[in-house]
Amino acid sequence: MLLNNKISLGFFVKNILHQALYIFLFANLIVLLKLFSAWPLVIPIAIAAILGTCIALLLAFRTNQAYDRWWEARIAWGAIVNDSRSLIRQLQMFLPDESKKELLHAFVERQCGFCFMLGDTLRGQDTAGRSKAFLSDADNVAVDKAANKPNAVLQQHSMAIRRLYDARELTDFQMVQLSINLNSLTDSMGRCERIKNTVFPRTYTFNMQVFIYLFAAILPFSLDPVHYFLDVPLVTLLASAFILIEKSAIQLQDPFENKPTDTPVTSIARTIEIDLKTMTDYPEIPDRHVSQTYYAL
Amino acid sequence: MLLNNKISLGFFVKNILHQALYIFLFANLIVLLKLFSAWPLVIPIAIAAILGTCIALLLAFRTNQAYDRWWEARIAWGAIVNDSRSLIRQLQMFLPDESKKELLHAFVERQCGFCFMLGDTLRGQDTAGRSKAFLSDADNVAVDKAANKPNAVLQQHSMAIRRLYDARELTDFQMVQLSINLNSLTDSMGRCERIKNTVFPRTYTFNMQVFIYLFAAILPFSLDPVHYFLDVPLVTLLASAFILIEKSAIQLQDPFENKPTDTPVTSIARTIEIDLKTMTDYPEIPDRHVSQTYYAL
Amino acid sequence: MLLNNKISLGFFVKNILHQALYIFLFANLIVLLKLFSAWPLVIPIAIAAILGTCIALLLAFRTNQAYDRWWEARIAWGAIVNDSRSLIRQLQMFLPDESKKELLHAFVERQCGFCFMLGDTLRGQDTAGRSKAFLSDADNVAVDKAANKPNAVLQQHSMAIRRLYDARELTDFQMVQLSINLNSLTDSMGRCERIKNTVFPRTYTFNMQVFIYLFAAILPFSLDPVHYFLDVPLVTLLASAFILIEKSAIQLQDPFENKPTDTPVTSIARTIEIDLKTMTDYPEIPDRHVSQTYYAL
Amino acid sequence: MLLNNKISLGFFVKNILHQALYIFLFANLIVLLKLFSAWPLVIPIAIAAILGTCIALLLAFRTNQAYDRWWEARIAWGAIVNDSRSLIRQLQMFLPDESKKELLHAFVERQCGFCFMLGDTLRGQDTAGRSKAFLSDADNVAVDKAANKPNAVLQQHSMAIRRLYDARELTDFQMVQLSINLNSLTDSMGRCERIKNTVFPRTYTFNMQVFIYLFAAILPFSLDPVHYFLDVPLVTLLASAFILIEKSAIQLQDPFENKPTDTPVTSIARTIEIDLKTMTDYPEIPDRHVSQTYYAL
Amino acid sequence: MLLNNKISLGFFVKNILHQALYIFLFANLIVLLKLFSAWPLVIPIAIAAILGTCIALLLAFRTNQAYDRWWEARIAWGAIVNDSRSLIRQLQMFLPDESKKELLHAFVERQCGFCFMLGDTLRGQDTAGRSKAFLSDADNVAVDKAANKPNAVLQQHSMAIRRLYDARELTDFQMVQLSINLNSLTDSMGRCERIKNTVFPRTYTFNMQVFIYLFAAILPFSLDPVHYFLDVPLVTLLASAFILIEKSAIQLQDPFENKPTDTPVTSIARTIEIDLKTMTDYPEIPDRHVSQTYYAL
Repeated sequence: MLLNNKISLGFFVKNILHQALYIFLFANLIVLLKLFSAWPLVIPIAIAAILGTCIALLLAFRTNQAYDRWWEARIAWGAIVNDSRSLIRQLQMFLPDESKKELLHAFVERQCGFCFMLGDTLRGQDTAGRSKAFLSDADNVAVDKAANKPNAVLQQHSMAIRRLYDARELTDFQMVQLSINLNSLTDSMGRCERIKNTVFPRTYTFNMQVFIYLFAAILPFSLDPVHYFLDVPLVTLLASAFILIEKSAIQLQDPFENKPTDTPVTSIARTIEIDLKTMTDYPEIPDRHVSQTYYAL
Repeated sequence: MLLNNKISLGFFVKNILHQALYIFLFANLIVLLKLFSAWPLVIPIAIAAILGTCIALLLAFRTNQAYDRWWEARIAWGAIVNDSRSLIRQLQMFLPDESKKELLHAFVERQCGFCFMLGDTLRGQDTAGRSKAFLSDADNVAVDKAANKPNAVLQQHSMAIRRLYDARELTDFQMVQLSINLNSLTDSMGRCERIKNTVFPRTYTFNMQVFIYLFAAILPFSLDPVHYFLDVPLVTLLASAFILIEKSAIQLQDPFENKPTDTPVTSIARTIEIDLKTMTDYPEIPDRHVSQTYYAL
Repeated sequence: MLLNNKISLGFFVKNILHQALYIFLFANLIVLLKLFSAWPLVIPIAIAAILGTCIALLLAFRTNQAYDRWWEARIAWGAIVNDSRSLIRQLQMFLPDESKKELLHAFVERQCGFCFMLGDTLRGQDTAGRSKAFLSDADNVAVDKAANKPNAVLQQHSMAIRRLYDARELTDFQMVQLSINLNSLTDSMGRCERIKNTVFPRTYTFNMQVFIYLFAAILPFSLDPVHYFLDVPLVTLLASAFILIEKSAIQLQDPFENKPTDTPVTSIARTIEIDLKTMTDYPEIPDRHVSQTYYAL
Repeated sequence: MLLNNKISLGFFVKNILHQALYIFLFANLIVLLKLFSAWPLVIPIAIAAILGTCIALLLAFRTNQAYDRWWEARIAWGAIVNDSRSLIRQLQMFLPDESKKELLHAFVERQCGFCFMLGDTLRGQDTAGRSKAFLSDADNVAVDKAANKPNAVLQQHSMAIRRLYDARELTDFQMVQLSINLNSLTDSMGRCERIKNTVFPRTYTFNMQVFIYLFAAILPFSLDPVHYFLDVPLVTLLASAFILIEKSAIQLQDPFENKPTDTPVTSIARTIEIDLKTMTDYPEIPDRHVSQTYYAL
Repeated sequence: MLLNNKISLGFFVKNILHQALYIFLFANLIVLLKLFSAWPLVIPIAIAAILGTCIALLLAFRTNQAYDRWWEARIAWGAIVNDSRSLIRQLQMFLPDESKKELLHAFVERQCGFCFMLGDTLRGQDTAGRSKAFLSDADNVAVDKAANKPNAVLQQHSMAIRRLYDARELTDFQMVQLSINLNSLTDSMGRCERIKNTVFPRTYTFNMQVFIYLFAAILPFSLDPVHYFLDVPLVTLLASAFILIEKSAIQLQDPFENKPTDTPVTSIARTIEIDLKTMTDYPEIPDRHVSQTYYAL
């Protein structure tokens, strides 16, 4: 999760250092070539300007699409928050008997388990610890066998709801309504998986780089070689600025990769845990996740 | 809430004064350097133009994304208005007996409490006063314990609906329909929380500023130092105009921060209160919220 | 409503005459200053080009956002058409007895009243006439007391549906389904109210104007004063063209203000009336609303 | 419907011939004026570039909005395909008795009639033929009286469903579910009507043309009159290219006008007919609509 | 499916080789014409810049629309994943009896068959093999007769659900809920068919090419013929870069054509198969689809 603290300049520089160096060396080469070449190697600067406009436009759209993916991942997790609250509130409404509190707690813990395990799965982390911490032994046996752990947890939800229906604690209509809630959680889970598993079209990234390097290659020919001490850093700065934006977009577009710009799945799951446990009168409510660094995961 | 009155120029100037000053001083420095330097420090103006196009594009998208967040917050509150009216109308439809008016009034007040408390929570303000003003004593006890107050209010709604079901005032189908209404309110609440809690990617703001300062640094090299009395204010004006747009976007993108550009949560909550109380024949209807300044919160 | 007839050029000219005049006088002033000033007041035209690009971009997005508001208002009214038809069709399906035709007619008239009164309310017009023309006396008494007339009409719908349920003309499930239909109408009504009540961020309009006037101020410095007879009209034309687009956007963004670009609420309400009355075999069907001017309201 | 065959260049040329001719003559006039005028009529080409950028941007958004309308019309018809299949499948599921096949066939034919008649109505064509071909005599009597034919067909659907309910062939819940399906068809129908009846803001088209003609008027002043044999065709080509894009947008934005770029309503309706008749074991299935020209309607 | 491996440069070059060659030859022609012509054939480079901006903008929007189509196809398949899981989970919830496992397996296999066959149909491949592998003999007879195979599979689902209802294994409400699930699958299927069957407006592609070739034709006139050894490759490179983006967009916009950029329908269908079979305790779970090349279909 991005926090509002200052991000050190170093974080950015580190990201684009390699490319900036290449461009710097290349620009020097061109300048030397122009200084010592017999031919007048001049390209009108308007050509570089056309390329610059093109890059700016493609970058703007690129940035927009990366942002949309990032925002969609956040929306999916917002929906998980909402549906978790709604699921538990509806269960509480349909099973109001105080003696059923234990039953409700089983659902709360399974739902928390679902959220944490979905987050871990999306980040490619092991879910065994979460599974033990939140699920009952019976659930654990079933979930362990499944390839898709969070989906298996939802299945355990549905089995538990069915048992309540068989015990006549829920009416037909209430059971179906709860199953619709589970569908909604399935949708959000699938949405995250889709974002995780769909690689942003590489051709776009490739085209972007073709344009940026073409720009870096043409620009030195358009500048007056007398000012080479000004030109070389200028070319490097400009091209680096373009690459910086491209890199920022790449960071945003994959929001489940254990990076600072990730959707804060763990901290959202914690919020859900706190909310659900408060709603069902748990004696102990966990603390809110506090991050010391400039971002929270 | 933004009103249609004129906004004083001062409001804007105050916002960008610092940056404008830095840029002014920096531009003077460059001009002096150019006037008294031995080297011909000239950068073709086309470079500045490329940067300008880039900034314009990024700003346009930036502005668009900020507007989308602001508009989404407004849509979420519009949905709260709709769902509040629908919830009370459906309750009234399902419980038409005149002797049940008191019952209905309890729901109306709890719903008004929900709206005001959600607004206060989003703005980071204390909800104790609202809680006392709108909720019954029993509700207050339950809500006080919760970390997420508005969610606790919705839970009290659901408990009250369940009590009506137990008393056979509502059929199974009606209860489930009302619980779907509560889900809808949960969704809008979660949507606001998402906007509130998700920091707009700082990298975007950072990249934006890299480009604007690069532009402000390069532009003076492209201007003829003979006209320095014209150049320095020109550079300052142009860069300030860019910063002005960036600042406007930043103001819009966080719509729950007690600023003039906020979503007018208090005044929308008041509208809801008036509507719901009129619908259920309250003897006293509060006045519409009138704002004296150029904006309403 | 916009019709496809030609719009007179005068309509546009009238709109931007004031600003065009100011810019014309200002441009003359600058030209005179340049002609008789001792200093060489020259700004490279690339600066004006950067500003021009910026204005073009902001205008394009501005135009887009205004269009989106206008189109959303049209979508909301399209939804009202659909929901009106669906409400009456479902009622007809659930109450097929021929002897119930009068009952159905009461719903049709109330629904027409809702549509016309919502249109009038959005435009800030008095609804008393419509209310008398379409609603029964009992309904009129209830609606008169309410601040939000269209909402009160929907409430009368819900009361009438409840009476049918009490008389065992509707099953539980049918009543709930009809109440969901009313929710849908509430949503569309709320959507229109949101567009009506949310002022488009004034900062955007302000920033826009800062850029346009900056452009108009800088451009004369970039032109050769020898051609002043060509320059002054040129500056005026260009800046006026920008202002023209800005004005067009402002006109579109508020679609309920009794302007030519309004959503044609009255004529849509008439269409609904015709459709509903045909569906329920009214003896007299009103004529389609025909407009003589180049637009219909 | 657009097919993937080559479109003849002539189709495009025909579209913009008039305007191209006006611009050609105008450019010649300006060139002559410049050649024989005493005054140095020169406008810096940067002004034309600013205008060009502006036009490019407005055209890009214009094109985008036209595309969105066209795509939305296609989405609405896609939804009609889906809902037609779902309606018949659900009916088949709720009425599985083989002896009820005739009943089902009546629904299939009415639904095909709805699709063809909606397409014809949107294109402003007579629906009498379709009505006779697909609807029963009783339905025809009812539909003939209605102003909105497709809506009347849906009403006949609802009446038939009610008769099944009265005959205890459908449960309460099943009837309501089918009525929800009809609502969905009503929504798609209303969506198409909205696109058909809402004229794209003429101010946008007007502004667009103001800019293009301003561009065509200014450009000749920026070119060197010595190359007039190169300039005049250049100006004509550029302005024509802009007009070409504008025209393409205009063609797309109105997708129900019997043009090559139309939504292929007839051919989609035929697909629906084939699907529904296959689903219900019709002895004769019509052939797929094959178009010989480069587009299908 | 795009994978994150490197794509060979050759893949791109092959795509644009033809056009690049034409442009190269044409540029040579113009340069020769300029070198040996008596007339001064010079076009100011600003004209090329205007065209360049135009192309950049149209390409950016073009790219965006192609991306939206591609992303929508992926969303539709994501929805198929979600709805497949929900359908089986709900069936399992409504039919919990262990002895009914076989029944459930029939649904699982039919659903896998639906996914694979939809993928094959969209790609224009034969579905006979899949049909035999997944469907029962009775289903195969029914599906073989249908023109639209996947739709016929859904119909078999609905028939099987009806049989369960007739056998009193499902309540009325549960059956209707399952039929809503099938509607949802119908919608996703229809969405894919819409993308497959709707040709992207050819006029857009045509206009794009008009601009790119106009640019390639004008640019050589703007360059100084002395540097022809630099100019010709420059023109070729620039125009090729534009064509490269156009080609990338064309590849993305049609996501069901057996190309590297396709939606990975087979591999998604395999994921669904694994998930559903794990959920219903199949003894053998198939392996995840592993692709050796840089993309998976």
